[in-house]
Amino acid sequence: MIIVPEREIADLMTREAAFDAVEKIFGAMAAGDAYNFPVVREAIGHEDALYGFKGGFDRAGLTLGLKAGGYWPNNLETKNLINHQSTVFLFDPDTGRAKAMVGGNLLTALRTAAASSVSIKHLARQDAKVIGMVGAGHQATFQLRQALEQRSFEKVIGWNYHPDMLPNIEKVATEAGLPFEAVELSGMAEADVIISITSSFNASLMADHVSPGTHVACMGTDTIGKQEVEPALLQKATVFTDEVAQSISIGEAQHAVGQGLISEGDVHQIGAVINGTHPGRESADQITLFDGTGVGLQDLAVAASVVDLAVAQGKAIEVDF
Amino acid sequence: MIIVPEREIADLMTREAAFDAVEKIFGAMAAGDAYNFPVVREAIGHEDALYGFKGGFDRAGLTLGLKAGGYWPNNLETKNLINHQSTVFLFDPDTGRAKAMVGGNLLTALRTAAASSVSIKHLARQDAKVIGMVGAGHQATFQLRQALEQRSFEKVIGWNYHPDMLPNIEKVATEAGLPFEAVELSGMAEADVIISITSSFNASLMADHVSPGTHVACMGTDTIGKQEVEPALLQKATVFTDEVAQSISIGEAQHAVGQGLISEGDVHQIGAVINGTHPGRESADQITLFDGTGVGLQDLAVAASVVDLAVAQGKAIEVDF
Repeated sequence: MIIVPEREIADLMTREAAFDAVEKIFGAMAAGDAYNFPVVREAIGHEDALYGFKGGFDRAGLTLGLKAGGYWPNNLETKNLINHQSTVFLFDPDTGRAKAMVGGNLLTALRTAAASSVSIKHLARQDAKVIGMVGAGHQATFQLRQALEQRSFEKVIGWNYHPDMLPNIEKVATEAGLPFEAVELSGMAEADVIISITSSFNASLMADHVSPGTHVACMGTDTIGKQEVEPALLQKATVFTDEVAQSISIGEAQHAVGQGLISEGDVHQIGAVINGTHPGRESADQITLFDGTGVGLQDLAVAASVVDLAVAQGKAIEVDF
Repeated sequence: MIIVPEREIADLMTREAAFDAVEKIFGAMAAGDAYNFPVVREAIGHEDALYGFKGGFDRAGLTLGLKAGGYWPNNLETKNLINHQSTVFLFDPDTGRAKAMVGGNLLTALRTAAASSVSIKHLARQDAKVIGMVGAGHQATFQLRQALEQRSFEKVIGWNYHPDMLPNIEKVATEAGLPFEAVELSGMAEADVIISITSSFNASLMADHVSPGTHVACMGTDTIGKQEVEPALLQKATVFTDEVAQSISIGEAQHAVGQGLISEGDVHQIGAVINGTHPGRESADQITLFDGTGVGLQDLAVAASVVDLAVAQGKAIEVDF
């Protein structure tokens, strides 16, 4: 039984390893080699917490297990702990025995950033120059940092409901040697790639804020009622997602599907593009949109990757369990 | 983070502690202080394994977490490991952080035995003398050993589909200084308490095998299609269970309810008897029947109990997670 504590993850895990793990698992999902279990999510009636389990099995990579944890909204203010708390547990699929326990907090941020980056790699125009960020919170910094590695971006523009948070992403741009500009939402028309990462319940980005040829990654909607973009944008775009069932029920596509603007058949697995069974982007003026809902298999994939790194670098704690 | 490996459980956990934990959690469930989450159970398509999660939260005892694991049918023959493999993970309900990891194999046997014993304590006649076992496998020995502590039994009788397994339970009777007799199913009419613990898909115990005044604990049915007793027996009996929703869907009551012999309202929570809000047995010739389906909260309750014992006895492994 191997234990990788939360405090070790930052030194062990690289953006490259997270990207590779997520790209591979999306491909396995589309190939039918990996699937997610039904998600358990409970408002437990204590500390206003949401708690649950996201499990899955990757038959190709032989990764089995779950992420358990959730959202404790009072953690930061009253206990100086981050509000999102999670732990990943891996099992040996040959025997059912517990195999590894891995801190899941930073991994969740990295796997979510990896998902939008995988979508940029496979769907954005090769000549994309301007990246726009809608949202400038903690998770936005991970998104931007990893996205900048996918194309030769020349400029970062950003909008946030509370503009005082924009320095978060400006800092990432500066570190990458890129100019940063705060814009209105209408200013997003300049962007070739847009990442939306908010926890909003109303659309911020409208269809006419997005220019032809843009790739949009919607990374914030993972619950019924949440919404980041105008449903008409999904109607204009070719829509991709990590998992179709989740996209149309709790993801960004819930609204466009619910309003009859698009149907389930209009939402495609990003893994099919990775595997070459879907063409992905087909023209320079096509709008592509990735609805990143977040699946348990992503967590298992990055956790399995970090376990390998911890063992290789002698940083794994071994417990005779 | 506290770790209690499987190998420590046998020395740490007592039947008394398991009994107390299960009795208390059944009471909390009936009082609305504790609830089980939806169960995830997946045939993963590898090693013919069934794998899943049973979670819950006990607001009164502040126990939050899940049991993860399942059934690996080839373990024993090909890997010299037991086929049922599970691990319990506890979380701090105040923060969402992982709190303990506990080997779940022996605990599962102990909590299942504790459940039938709790039902015997609260539902069997005080003057019960003969206990009958239907089933004589590994789990039956746990059931019998703990049941013998609930009344002044004077004799054990037993039946098993394969009679060559009966020495398993004869040994337990002998250790307790009691005579043992192998019987036909019709011989169960002599029993004042019957525990049925098989993995059968057809009824073994028929309604006319059970005498007035008997308490029957059906502990083997936890899946659609499994069946231990004739549905007419449930119609004759006052029926109790750990969790009503599970009893009528995957427990023994699935058949009697499915055939319209009883309805959901005829199935009562054992916790209500424990709490004194249901009278339980009301006459000496009443047949009472407990449908023990097994819920996640039982696992969490005994795991929390064993963690306390491990800490008190200095046997807990502490990991800075």
